[in-house]
Amino acid sequence: MKQAAYIILKPGADKRLKGGHPWIFDNEISHCVGLPTAEETGLHAGQRVQLFSTAKQFLGSGLASPASKIRVRRYSAQDEAFSAALIQERLETAWRLRKARYQLELDSCRLVFGEADGLPGLIVDLYTGRSATVPTSGVRQSWLVVQLLFAGLEPYRQHILDSLESICQPSGIYERSEAAVRQLEGLPPASGPLRGQTPDEIIIRENELDFGVHLTSGQKTGWFLDQARNRAAVAAWAVGQSVLDVCCNAGGFSLCAARAGAKSVLAVDASADALTAVQANATRNQLADRVRTLQADAFEALRTQQASGERYGLIIVDPPAFAKNHAALAGARRGYRDLNLQAIKLLAPGGVLASFSCSHWLGRDLLQEAIEEAAVGAGRRLRYLEELQQAPDHPMMSGYPESRYLKGFVVQAVE
Amino acid sequence: MKQAAYIILKPGADKRLKGGHPWIFDNEISHCVGLPTAEETGLHAGQRVQLFSTAKQFLGSGLASPASKIRVRRYSAQDEAFSAALIQERLETAWRLRKARYQLELDSCRLVFGEADGLPGLIVDLYTGRSATVPTSGVRQSWLVVQLLFAGLEPYRQHILDSLESICQPSGIYERSEAAVRQLEGLPPASGPLRGQTPDEIIIRENELDFGVHLTSGQKTGWFLDQARNRAAVAAWAVGQSVLDVCCNAGGFSLCAARAGAKSVLAVDASADALTAVQANATRNQLADRVRTLQADAFEALRTQQASGERYGLIIVDPPAFAKNHAALAGARRGYRDLNLQAIKLLAPGGVLASFSCSHWLGRDLLQEAIEEAAVGAGRRLRYLEELQQAPDHPMMSGYPESRYLKGFVVQAVE
Repeated sequence: MKQAAYIILKPGADKRLKGGHPWIFDNEISHCVGLPTAEETGLHAGQRVQLFSTAKQFLGSGLASPASKIRVRRYSAQDEAFSAALIQERLETAWRLRKARYQLELDSCRLVFGEADGLPGLIVDLYTGRSATVPTSGVRQSWLVVQLLFAGLEPYRQHILDSLESICQPSGIYERSEAAVRQLEGLPPASGPLRGQTPDEIIIRENELDFGVHLTSGQKTGWFLDQARNRAAVAAWAVGQSVLDVCCNAGGFSLCAARAGAKSVLAVDASADALTAVQANATRNQLADRVRTLQADAFEALRTQQASGERYGLIIVDPPAFAKNHAALAGARRGYRDLNLQAIKLLAPGGVLASFSCSHWLGRDLLQEAIEEAAVGAGRRLRYLEELQQAPDHPMMSGYPESRYLKGFVVQAVE
Repeated sequence: MKQAAYIILKPGADKRLKGGHPWIFDNEISHCVGLPTAEETGLHAGQRVQLFSTAKQFLGSGLASPASKIRVRRYSAQDEAFSAALIQERLETAWRLRKARYQLELDSCRLVFGEADGLPGLIVDLYTGRSATVPTSGVRQSWLVVQLLFAGLEPYRQHILDSLESICQPSGIYERSEAAVRQLEGLPPASGPLRGQTPDEIIIRENELDFGVHLTSGQKTGWFLDQARNRAAVAAWAVGQSVLDVCCNAGGFSLCAARAGAKSVLAVDASADALTAVQANATRNQLADRVRTLQADAFEALRTQQASGERYGLIIVDPPAFAKNHAALAGARRGYRDLNLQAIKLLAPGGVLASFSCSHWLGRDLLQEAIEEAAVGAGRRLRYLEELQQAPDHPMMSGYPESRYLKGFVVQAVE
């Protein structure tokens, strides 16, 4: 490891850092001191960087990522090395936080949520369950699925894995580092087993239901843990209702609603694989008689239902992020409005809509505006019943708005 | 009942109404048509009013309150009378909404939340439990506690009570109409039994705990139903912790924390009556060994604890509304910041703060700012774990921000 570099920020660039934001963009760096070439381009991936304002005020310690627009990510406001001891301490703190909240039900959860846990670019999901592919193995085990989404972490890979093993004693650690984000860091995609054995499919327990989770091939790290609590909250409105679950993925909301006592559930997704998973999960929980699936684009499905005269007592709209960046925001906002408009038109009198956005860019207020506009378009007003967020194992850091991404509103559309 | 009056609003005053707000202030009225004197002052309390914009666009039907600054409250966007049938329909809709959400646990809840349920100025809380004062009566019964906070409702009192009786079949209906709000309506305070028998104290079941509730003399209608779910959410962070509950009232948070497995709970309130209730509730649930009480002003208690070196793993701050109106906002904001600053200083490393504001005026963003400033003052940063609101039996109406009043943040203060 090369010695620490000293980076002086441009005037004004210290403000966001002082507010708690952990990122330094390439165009915020004035110059580097202490490198052989005195050039920023001399930075190594993972090199420790000491950050200073233009007035030479110390702003903390970061790790460098020379190919990324996010050139440095701060991991500490102190002058301290990104050592094996620091990694161990951060992981133990993250583990304690989840244990504090989930100790009575520590099944599966997000163990490390990157910057919000002081470990920039590191995602670790803990899955507890049993293998679905080894029939003789009914024993509950744990597996970790990790994503390293920051080139600055690469040199610390083995330290991180060592600490994770010592803290969690998982049966296996599997990597699922997304191609798109890695590319921005100048890294190739990375996927595959890192330690121990990880089966392709396991069965986890959530909200008193069994769900099959494809650790090595499912979306994200296999399961949307961020919606775990929201599924139970939304299902409380499902009792006795006919339910429509739009963008249902593997059926988390659908199955919770069916179990809570929904009269019937129609689970809609564009992906045939997702619907196969819904059906398998429904069968697994003896709920197949109440859950039907429909393979269709969300907009198309809503319009078809509209034409058929079907009306629902509960509609869940949980689309993938329409806005992946700021430039896509205006179009995304229209998309959310239109989707919610179609959904509201399908509500039976007194019906309830649970509408989510998982895009950081389309924030809470914008989602609310989109739903309000949809209500106006449908000639309805909204009675707000609940507001939902990402689960507490996906914490948000003050000064770092990117850590807040999932939000939802449960509303009743009234005449 | 006099015939309907026709009110023409001043230019621009229609905008808020069109957005869904149900209030028309005295200074927004241009003139009245169809009254004997053609004078606004000829309005009777409870008289039906047809609302029109300056351009004579119909804006809905309201009820008049001649002595109030809130001169008219709209109950419908249609041209319809405030009839016994409309009252019955609104109450049934409100009842269905609560049953839809709480049917598995319909113990006690807010049955009518005024404007948000289409019944301006009417609060009805449903309490289910058993009498504490009639020892032989272990049977579960229901009681209603009502508040009529709008002069326009007074002529409809008997219709409202008749409908409530027919829908809920309560053992008693008791009135607890607050003096302060009634005064603004030109009404005397009103308190006392309206129908059937209502014991002073009943025992309700909430979060698997028994709580004594003084229906005829406790704060509000006897119990803060709006925090019912939040007590469970906050208690999930209490396991194994020493807990400080500031402004504990009758001990809702304290008892939930103790039951969840807190090591110890210190419940602080300025009111001796509140602490007597905490102790009675602790004894009632076999938790008296873990719950201590301290009679003190909130600020004073926090400073004393600070000086004594005590530190807590979970601190709950749920003060009464510091801001009762807009003029008091700046002072209130300082108050929340100072209270939260003192609380954050008392957190053990990794400790969690649950901080609430029940003032509409000090909204979500202002509360968050106050907590953020407190963290800066204490040299900490915040990790946001959960965001909380009033329970869904206290719904919020779009375009009517006054219906949103309770919000809270659960945060971890990190170095």
